[in-house]
Amino acid sequence: MKTYSIALIPGDGVGKDVTQAAWQVLRAAAKRGGFGLEGTNFPWSCAYYRKTGAMMPKDGIEILRKFDAIYLGSVGWPAEVPDAVSLHGLLLPIRKAFTQYANIRPHRLLPGVQGPLRSEGFDILCIRENTEGEYSGAGGRVHSGTGNEVAVETAIFTRVGVERIIRFGFEQARARRKKLASVTKSNAQKYSMVFWDEVTREVAKEYRDVEVSHYHIDAMAARMVMAPESLDVIVASNLFGDILTDLGAAIQGGLGFAASANINPDREAPSMFEPVHGSAPDIAHLGIANPIAAIWSGAMMLEHLGERNAAGEVMSAIESVTARGIGTIAGKDRTEAITQAVLAAITEGAEERS
Amino acid sequence: MKTYSIALIPGDGVGKDVTQAAWQVLRAAAKRGGFGLEGTNFPWSCAYYRKTGAMMPKDGIEILRKFDAIYLGSVGWPAEVPDAVSLHGLLLPIRKAFTQYANIRPHRLLPGVQGPLRSEGFDILCIRENTEGEYSGAGGRVHSGTGNEVAVETAIFTRVGVERIIRFGFEQARARRKKLASVTKSNAQKYSMVFWDEVTREVAKEYRDVEVSHYHIDAMAARMVMAPESLDVIVASNLFGDILTDLGAAIQGGLGFAASANINPDREAPSMFEPVHGSAPDIAHLGIANPIAAIWSGAMMLEHLGERNAAGEVMSAIESVTARGIGTIAGKDRTEAITQAVLAAITEGAEERS
Ligand SMILES: CC(C)[C@H](C(=O)O)[C@@H](O)C(=O)O
Ligand SMILES: CC(C)[C@H](C(=O)O)[C@@H](O)C(=O)O
Repeated sequence: MKTYSIALIPGDGVGKDVTQAAWQVLRAAAKRGGFGLEGTNFPWSCAYYRKTGAMMPKDGIEILRKFDAIYLGSVGWPAEVPDAVSLHGLLLPIRKAFTQYANIRPHRLLPGVQGPLRSEGFDILCIRENTEGEYSGAGGRVHSGTGNEVAVETAIFTRVGVERIIRFGFEQARARRKKLASVTKSNAQKYSMVFWDEVTREVAKEYRDVEVSHYHIDAMAARMVMAPESLDVIVASNLFGDILTDLGAAIQGGLGFAASANINPDREAPSMFEPVHGSAPDIAHLGIANPIAAIWSGAMMLEHLGERNAAGEVMSAIESVTARGIGTIAGKDRTEAITQAVLAAITEGAEERS
Repeated sequence: MKTYSIALIPGDGVGKDVTQAAWQVLRAAAKRGGFGLEGTNFPWSCAYYRKTGAMMPKDGIEILRKFDAIYLGSVGWPAEVPDAVSLHGLLLPIRKAFTQYANIRPHRLLPGVQGPLRSEGFDILCIRENTEGEYSGAGGRVHSGTGNEVAVETAIFTRVGVERIIRFGFEQARARRKKLASVTKSNAQKYSMVFWDEVTREVAKEYRDVEVSHYHIDAMAARMVMAPESLDVIVASNLFGDILTDLGAAIQGGLGFAASANINPDREAPSMFEPVHGSAPDIAHLGIANPIAAIWSGAMMLEHLGERNAAGEVMSAIESVTARGIGTIAGKDRTEAITQAVLAAITEGAEERS
């Protein structure tokens, strides 16, 4: 039996609750699908930091490297550990170290979920550059003699980095409705964003079957709200992708429904799967976190591992559950109830098909 | 009779249509209010650039400096003149040269306007830093020997620049519902945004009557869509403010309703008023551009000039017109019809009060 080894990092707060839920569902899907999932738990988190002084051990990256995939709940505990420590000590280094340059986030309404928009018929795939750009971490603070201190932050875009994410965007668009929207702010940022536009135009020549359009980030934010059904695949920089995917989460009903995959498309290192939501310490361990985004992220992991059928079964199960109004309203259903409903739907779905 | 001198820059495309409309309304309001408005037209635009090779004359800034205010329609004609020329040759230099450091944009639904959100009861004031930050224009392109070209773009924040916009935000919040939300991305941008947070915390000590909260830009974009009614005043950097105000325009029904003021709060140079929308060359001079955002921006100008009553009259006139369903749907009513309706409402309003 084919068995995949998964590094599980539940992290902080509700990260633990939803990872546990998602893991049960993924195991059930694996059982049905005739493959194995072997999970190894890593307690790397803010609690771990408070004990050891680091978010993960020095050889954390090397430990993770040998897994087939990484599943992350959520990290961060802002009241106790600064974000600069928690995120820059775990989440962001993993994305970079494993060249998970494509952060993929699907935005559509699950059946039964009411979003904040009147519009309901949208199906957007956001592709976010995940390793460089505005998150490069380059910058500093200069104290001037006159007291007018200066802080600078430098975004760094490389041709290799931009080209590969644009190409990835085109590939995704080709597999969908063949429309790619590239997002910049080249009317105000003359170096980074003009560069991005140039590279996009070059790569576009290889994908003449895909219709490509160029938006400024402000116009795209507006469009996602005014006419989301007009969009198919969006490709954007690290920061712009971050903003647009939270907006995408909002229009799909909230962070409880926002799944994500941090993909290394070249497969020379593991990819990482995580719900977009944070650790929400205020509702941690009350048993009321919505596990849907986590389970959906798990389905993306199965898909990436090549288990398309199982991934499809998990998605169908989620959809049949939300269609019945379970897990669609924040705080209404308990984590366990939603998880059990999804598990039952997987079993039923399998029985129907047999 | 007190008379204000206004520099009118209609600009490109629909900029001309809406400036003409707004100017009629402002003159009518001035007449009722017993003050004078003297407009001087400047043809600075992309058409001007094509004739002269510059968006405005060399001494353009000096010419504008002696006016009480500047009213701008819209600039840009991307098919003919690159944005880098049109915007960096006119709009952005004016904002900087006159230290119009506060870009103010109100976001609420006018009566009769249906927005894309189910939620309708919001009233947000966005304050955007308008002179530095991510729009500093610092950066460059480096060609590496290996073919991996690099583009860098440096955001520059100064203490003076951040402090004054935060203080301005607190002042606005104090005059409203006393809630200020400061927007950064300090969990990923460790220099610029951590600096902004620090300055905010310092300035907050002077405004203990105002409740201040800190959001990351991604979370704020989501909040504006999920719970806009929870927001009062937002203060953000140049780029983040740009994004949030287009989102604000979207939730208030579109760019046809989004007004803005570029304010020099110290009044040592003129402020500039402009609708947020672009020049929309495709519908220019067809007589169908919606002048409401332009007229609203004009009301903000009257307010800034100290003519509060007249500003209030213009706003009431706009609201009585949209409440009757005029100008509320893109393309339905002609520019002239909407303008005449607003003019009539100003006259009627004045008669009711007399
Ligand atoms: C926590 C934060 C650094 C992170 C990001 O901005 O990348 C998060 O918002 C996300 O979208 O995954
Ligand atoms: C045209 C562009 C440079 C401008 C900006 O980003 O400032 C516009 O989007 C705005 O919001 O006024």
